[in-house]
Amino acid sequence: MESKNIKIIIAYDGTNYSGWQRQKNKKNIQGTIEKTISIITGEQEIKLYGSGRTDAGVHALGQVANFHTYSNLPVDRWPFALNNALPGDIRIKYAKKVNARFHARYSAKSKLYRYCVMTENIVDEKNYYSSKYVFLKNYCYFFTKKLDVDRMNEAAKYLTGYHDFSSLSCLNKKKNDRKKNKIRKILNIKIEKKKKFVHFSIEANSFLYKMVRIIIGTLIDFSVNERNPGEIIQILKNKDNFKSGQVVPPCGLYLVKVRYK
Amino acid sequence: MESKNIKIIIAYDGTNYSGWQRQKNKKNIQGTIEKTISIITGEQEIKLYGSGRTDAGVHALGQVANFHTYSNLPVDRWPFALNNALPGDIRIKYAKKVNARFHARYSAKSKLYRYCVMTENIVDEKNYYSSKYVFLKNYCYFFTKKLDVDRMNEAAKYLTGYHDFSSLSCLNKKKNDRKKNKIRKILNIKIEKKKKFVHFSIEANSFLYKMVRIIIGTLIDFSVNERNPGEIIQILKNKDNFKSGQVVPPCGLYLVKVRYK
Repeated sequence: MESKNIKIIIAYDGTNYSGWQRQKNKKNIQGTIEKTISIITGEQEIKLYGSGRTDAGVHALGQVANFHTYSNLPVDRWPFALNNALPGDIRIKYAKKVNARFHARYSAKSKLYRYCVMTENIVDEKNYYSSKYVFLKNYCYFFTKKLDVDRMNEAAKYLTGYHDFSSLSCLNKKKNDRKKNKIRKILNIKIEKKKKFVHFSIEANSFLYKMVRIIIGTLIDFSVNERNPGEIIQILKNKDNFKSGQVVPPCGLYLVKVRYK
Repeated sequence: MESKNIKIIIAYDGTNYSGWQRQKNKKNIQGTIEKTISIITGEQEIKLYGSGRTDAGVHALGQVANFHTYSNLPVDRWPFALNNALPGDIRIKYAKKVNARFHARYSAKSKLYRYCVMTENIVDEKNYYSSKYVFLKNYCYFFTKKLDVDRMNEAAKYLTGYHDFSSLSCLNKKKNDRKKNKIRKILNIKIEKKKKFVHFSIEANSFLYKMVRIIIGTLIDFSVNERNPGEIIQILKNKDNFKSGQVVPPCGLYLVKVRYK
């Protein structure tokens, strides 16, 4: 019997997880789904390949993953079967049988992330604290200094296309990534005001470690310190993240979509 | 030195709490705030009087409570001091020095609750599962049968004013409440469609055990089973909850406001 390769699209609330990646003794998304597939199929050695890792606290609306199984479950039953057994903060949106060679990471053409900043002050003019923080604290970044969307969009324009993003990413200490190629292609960056929120959308062919969150921290820094948008070219050229902005908190970040050929 | 009586307004996300009430070995709102006040003041015997209990999973936008303290902390510093030490899912919105006789429960004139129902289907026409469940599951009740707002408003009209609400509440087994007076005055009930949501707002002078959630379950039952709105009069008269609707889940319920004379 031949195994089937199943592609799934997953939404999750990352608040109570240590991230996508399988880790011993830590609640993680990958391991939780693998265990659930194993329970359903009776297969011990289920490996779920994600399009990429998301850090602790990062959410997904459209993470993509694939796994190989000998199960005879009709492919359109997979979301229902998995959702019945998974915790409510992980949902399978969709499942599809794909070519044996499909790999959620290696076959991906691009990934789209969105970052959500809440700009409303937690304390109002009467010095009353807002209730919003309580309900949104895990789902956006509360940042109340004024954000200049035009300035940030102008700086962001310089980041599109192929660049060495050494200065807008972190070394992943767990992996020997000093030698790795740091050139990535940003397809699109867009910053938009949405009522009390500011949304940052970034699509790239792939991302370096903490790259999205450092780019957003840097754009926020350009806004707050009224830096000249063109300065970002020099930051890229420096190839170290000394003059970049800070890593923004994970709770505002959503993996929205992964595109394939 | 005389003690001060401090009134506070509190917002909380009830998801990770066993409810308002102090309980040994269970995470609860009242005990968490009392402990934090004790840490700030150094006073061991802080008692926080809430306007009423909320069940496990129920949220608050405007719970009110009061406590007596000898602390010299200026009253407008209390929200900041408490919020600095409290977990992020509890926020003090406001603090005020009040008359020594003020009691958050006994002085209350009315309480306003809101219940939030999400009416969008979790599965769309293409059989894709929505991401919304993941992010809203703790903050509203997913109920996708059609809700007839007009019919529910019509039935609700019969509930306003003074009534014996025995049939639209539960016996609280922990307390010997069989003999208690079950007459309450509903000041206002309103059911409104808000885009994909239906909001139920109920204000009453006070509420019996699970009264809000049974009223809403009953109104939903009137909608789903196309019951004649006038039948609700008979339910009230029966004085037992045999023909009432089910208790709706706590996650959709918010204590919005407590009014005082």
